[in-house]
Amino acid sequence: MTRPDSRSQVALLRVLRDEGPRSRAELGDLTGLTRPKLMAEIARLEQLGLVRHGGQAASRGGRRSTMVSIDPHVRFVAVAIGATSIDVAVTDGHLGILDRRSEAADVRQGPKVVLRRVAELVNKLRAEHGKALTGIGIGVPGPVRFPDGVLVSPPLMPGWNRYPVRDNFARKYGCPVLVDNDVNVMAVGEQWGGVARSVDNFLFVKIGTGIGCGIVVHGEVYRGIDGCAGDIGHINVDPDGPVCACGNTGCLDSVFSGAALSRDAAAAAGSGSSPVLAARLEQHGTVTPIDVADAAAEGDPVAVRLIRQGGRRLGLVLSGLVGFMNPSLIVIGGGLSNLGHVLLADIRGVVYRRSLPMASGNLPIVLSELGETAGVIGAAATISDHVFRIS
Amino acid sequence: MTRPDSRSQVALLRVLRDEGPRSRAELGDLTGLTRPKLMAEIARLEQLGLVRHGGQAASRGGRRSTMVSIDPHVRFVAVAIGATSIDVAVTDGHLGILDRRSEAADVRQGPKVVLRRVAELVNKLRAEHGKALTGIGIGVPGPVRFPDGVLVSPPLMPGWNRYPVRDNFARKYGCPVLVDNDVNVMAVGEQWGGVARSVDNFLFVKIGTGIGCGIVVHGEVYRGIDGCAGDIGHINVDPDGPVCACGNTGCLDSVFSGAALSRDAAAAAGSGSSPVLAARLEQHGTVTPIDVADAAAEGDPVAVRLIRQGGRRLGLVLSGLVGFMNPSLIVIGGGLSNLGHVLLADIRGVVYRRSLPMASGNLPIVLSELGETAGVIGAAATISDHVFRIS
Repeated sequence: MTRPDSRSQVALLRVLRDEGPRSRAELGDLTGLTRPKLMAEIARLEQLGLVRHGGQAASRGGRRSTMVSIDPHVRFVAVAIGATSIDVAVTDGHLGILDRRSEAADVRQGPKVVLRRVAELVNKLRAEHGKALTGIGIGVPGPVRFPDGVLVSPPLMPGWNRYPVRDNFARKYGCPVLVDNDVNVMAVGEQWGGVARSVDNFLFVKIGTGIGCGIVVHGEVYRGIDGCAGDIGHINVDPDGPVCACGNTGCLDSVFSGAALSRDAAAAAGSGSSPVLAARLEQHGTVTPIDVADAAAEGDPVAVRLIRQGGRRLGLVLSGLVGFMNPSLIVIGGGLSNLGHVLLADIRGVVYRRSLPMASGNLPIVLSELGETAGVIGAAATISDHVFRIS
Repeated sequence: MTRPDSRSQVALLRVLRDEGPRSRAELGDLTGLTRPKLMAEIARLEQLGLVRHGGQAASRGGRRSTMVSIDPHVRFVAVAIGATSIDVAVTDGHLGILDRRSEAADVRQGPKVVLRRVAELVNKLRAEHGKALTGIGIGVPGPVRFPDGVLVSPPLMPGWNRYPVRDNFARKYGCPVLVDNDVNVMAVGEQWGGVARSVDNFLFVKIGTGIGCGIVVHGEVYRGIDGCAGDIGHINVDPDGPVCACGNTGCLDSVFSGAALSRDAAAAAGSGSSPVLAARLEQHGTVTPIDVADAAAEGDPVAVRLIRQGGRRLGLVLSGLVGFMNPSLIVIGGGLSNLGHVLLADIRGVVYRRSLPMASGNLPIVLSELGETAGVIGAAATISDHVFRIS
């Protein structure tokens, strides 16, 4: 497949992707193209297999105009690889999810094992929804050198350093592939179809096994010089805190993250201070953040305290970042965002109390709208942006 | 005065500003303009009073080419207003400082008093170096709503909120005026003519009465949604720390800044733990950060400890920002940067130890090259960028 080769084609593709089928007359109005130019650009996009004509629009008084839409055969595959899960979806050209498969996984098993399972899920989805893929977007839980599509020195991901994830998939499926950090991808998802729609400067905070942050500046993901911007999990929140996997003490990740919450909940269960968590531990042999959320929902004071403490710690970090970045919105997402409004209340409490009024006066702090689909929708938006642009 | 009206004119002005006089032949090579187009653009810039022809270039083999330079009558006035000082300079079109006047001031006296003194200094400089001003750049020690040229809710600056600084000067001098936050201005200075030359993503940290940070992203100052980005003085570094002027406890400003250092040094002098500082206190009735620097240079262990503690606190904040922003350079400037390499060593120690290797592996942390002229050179660069662009 080749790409659109003019700005007008890109504009047409984005309108059709984001707003659905439009009549030629409407497209003329929206893009300001003359009729012959519009016809030529649409013809070119049809040739590329990206749009198609179909049906007649309702009359606007004169002759009825022909409808144009993204070609119904356009298929994006969106992959969200987390530390402990794989999530694969196939979407149409409007980024509507046609089908989605998720399974538990352990990223520490290395790229060969994990990517083979991703490929199996992709193949199943292709078998049911169309073999030819327009593009594949992949989010991975570590720093990515974006131009090369490789992870670079990801912590806790043995074997992934510089593994050619993008080229591996591009060869296998013969289509454009883009790889980015999972949190950046989720930020793009919220920006495309979630709570950050039409917001140009915001932070997306993912609370999962670890904590990370996607930074959107002037409408674009900001990746930093080495592709590792947004690594907020190792900001110090307690000089006397526990030792973190990175070797320092008191990192945010070490006091509040999926891993830290499981550790603290297991300790509370073991010490007998929380019978509810103790029961969970006995039942499953482990205590997960979901158990803590459930226990908090049942009114277990220890679980509520763990969540609130974590919210305050994260709030302290975010209040610093609000002063530094002066964003217009903070979105909280990731697995632990299902700790919900208890967590959000404490985050907000600290940020609004500690930040200068000018920076936080008009600053909404909200939960992700896309929730667990932020990763795959973001991956689809990322790859569609890449395909629907001038090559 | 009107502005250049084409991209080629802007390109010509920037080359001449940054690289000095060039022959027409060289300008043709540098800009890729055809000879007639080049002649027309130069003629237009001469008409605007921004460039002039003069002298013959050395022969390149054929006919000798005429030299072109920024008009020698071009004058930029650069104003750096700090919490406790005013610094005014007049530059030529190459941003070379022709003259400079500084005096102590107290920004808390309000805009009328302070700006009247600025105007007096400007008038003296005009009387000696040319009445017609090409533009005025002004740095102020608080958050600025950049499009309007007004300070918005600046802390500790009574009377300045929304005071029309830009319009006041524009009316008085009949030339373009730009107002920006002092730290942003200093960052632009280092980028134009200091240690951050040709660096596109860096942080400029000013340690003065308070601590602030200029953020340069993709070559441009990042101001945030309300113009107050870079406010790192209120990042929490010690939950049990002293109460800050903002009302919170343990802000960076409250444990390390000019004000905090003076407070701690006076306490050390009073308690008798540092005879060197006590002597200073007795002599001047106060202890300034310069006294602490001098005492440290004399080997006073209390002064050295105060500086090193401060460096570690600032280092902790910067290590968090390194993870978040992944910049390619950190520049340390402002009055307290004359605490010098003792301070720098401790900042570096913490940042390199606490940051993930990927983000800090190639990260230089250096002292400002422009030192005390960063403010006025930055103000001149800011206003010249504004004048040397398409209106």
